[in-house]
Amino acid sequence: MQKPIIYLQKAFRKEFVTKIQEIAPNYQVSTELADDELNNVEISVGWKQEKELQLLNHSNLKWVQAVSAGVDYLPLSEFEKKGIFLSNGSGIHSLSISEHVIGTLLTYYRGIGQAIKNQAVKKWDQTGIHYDQLSGKNLLIVGTGHIGKQLSVSLRGLGVNVYGINTTGHPVSGFIETYSIKNLAKIAEGMDIVVGILPGTEATYHIFNSDVFSHMKPDAVFINVGRGDSVHTKELATALKEQQIAFAALDVFEEEPLPVDSELWELENLLITPHISGMTVDFQRKFMTIFLKNLKSYVADGKLVENQVELRRGY
Amino acid sequence: MQKPIIYLQKAFRKEFVTKIQEIAPNYQVSTELADDELNNVEISVGWKQEKELQLLNHSNLKWVQAVSAGVDYLPLSEFEKKGIFLSNGSGIHSLSISEHVIGTLLTYYRGIGQAIKNQAVKKWDQTGIHYDQLSGKNLLIVGTGHIGKQLSVSLRGLGVNVYGINTTGHPVSGFIETYSIKNLAKIAEGMDIVVGILPGTEATYHIFNSDVFSHMKPDAVFINVGRGDSVHTKELATALKEQQIAFAALDVFEEEPLPVDSELWELENLLITPHISGMTVDFQRKFMTIFLKNLKSYVADGKLVENQVELRRGY
Repeated sequence: MQKPIIYLQKAFRKEFVTKIQEIAPNYQVSTELADDELNNVEISVGWKQEKELQLLNHSNLKWVQAVSAGVDYLPLSEFEKKGIFLSNGSGIHSLSISEHVIGTLLTYYRGIGQAIKNQAVKKWDQTGIHYDQLSGKNLLIVGTGHIGKQLSVSLRGLGVNVYGINTTGHPVSGFIETYSIKNLAKIAEGMDIVVGILPGTEATYHIFNSDVFSHMKPDAVFINVGRGDSVHTKELATALKEQQIAFAALDVFEEEPLPVDSELWELENLLITPHISGMTVDFQRKFMTIFLKNLKSYVADGKLVENQVELRRGY
Repeated sequence: MQKPIIYLQKAFRKEFVTKIQEIAPNYQVSTELADDELNNVEISVGWKQEKELQLLNHSNLKWVQAVSAGVDYLPLSEFEKKGIFLSNGSGIHSLSISEHVIGTLLTYYRGIGQAIKNQAVKKWDQTGIHYDQLSGKNLLIVGTGHIGKQLSVSLRGLGVNVYGINTTGHPVSGFIETYSIKNLAKIAEGMDIVVGILPGTEATYHIFNSDVFSHMKPDAVFINVGRGDSVHTKELATALKEQQIAFAALDVFEEEPLPVDSELWELENLLITPHISGMTVDFQRKFMTIFLKNLKSYVADGKLVENQVELRRGY
């Protein structure tokens, strides 16, 4: 009888493939599948759209280890029906996203964005530079998961007062105070900075909307590095044009790539980055610390110990 | 007899003028001088070029409290000859400069600078983005004074390994190791980032030169927020063009404003900011914590307790 297959939908370095084989000697590790191997696939590392139907309908899939933190692009209800486990890559990108957010904030607060634009036209302009101080600011992290926690640690070291929002308002260490998501607009009122790090679920769809923006201070900053559709893009654009808030930075969008005819491109007080905040050096090693730990446990007793997704909740 | 004058060469809020008057009731506080008042000036707050000769030759000046951290633009040897005390504003700008340096680093490491340039032409480009991780980097701060210490605190919170250089290599708390300036080129060899925060003195003139740059790693970053002429600009430009180092950011220049025909403007791997790193919110309050402390002590026993400059040394 053929061995069950661990199907790597992404290429990994030899050292890691060797480790997988050591931990799971009764499995075959494959990066390519012959047609007659499909029904032997038990574990998939990564998830590609074009393989979805094949795997769902013809394999013996029991566990998918996603590479990303967000899993809203996977067929969660199908997984639930078939009893397929799902774990995500949450934590891998935390440090990168955290550094990205701080970089974005300081680009704005220290006038670096303006200076870059001025350099392009060889313009030396001190007086037009907007400057402010990050230290001492009140900042709200909406989403107190892996990334939110890492961001909080980094920001506190820079003298920022960090507050958090999660589903129920349950306390999380490292946050001065945490509030329930239903109070978002009210809590946003007192904040200098609001950072969205929400997963894509029905509950988070367009949660950052005109109601929230109109509650924010006119000198406040909004940043989104979570899911693109957690922001009501049109209403954010209006808030920026009418200067209800001073500045925003988006790394994720409702439609990606951002269409060339989007009005966002030309907003002076919006920084656009092309979904790069999660790009991280040493990715394979970071990913394998999660996957290999899960694999060990899965082989031993069929359970996952790290980053298992609650399929109904969606994260 | 007329009261001696505290001459404010910069306007301060009424609350601070009142405090000055409370601490020094036997002095007159003036922001403008009548001709016959010049010889009564004993203390000058701030130092403007256009008043220099008048004050040096016709006043009874005993103490100048500078607003800036660097004091190389003041007539130090004249002060020494006449026994005039000088104190500087070191410390006021530390937090701002520290945030500026971190902002500059993350602008580069997280590809934010590239994204800003792409946004101007509505270009969505993920694959061309250079990204790296600040956390874990080895960083050398050249100049372990007020600013260097603050920068070290902020950077350590972000996971950076911080080394220092000062005149003699004397240890400074918060630095993993400190070295003497005479070993600059050798120490720079092992660093991912070198940050210059040196005062302008004969000893620091053109200290960042081709010798240093040629020792640095090809993926290293150089930042200068100290004095412009501590950098040999022409040799830095060559190092950048030949990619001896990967990236540089200059906030200060040998000639300011940077002339429009300078070759620096067009260097792709150089970020130019127009001497803004020290711009700081709440400046008056920060400055007054230094000046009022000194004033109290000066009125009591003629001594300064904060930021007195050693005139021969120049800082």
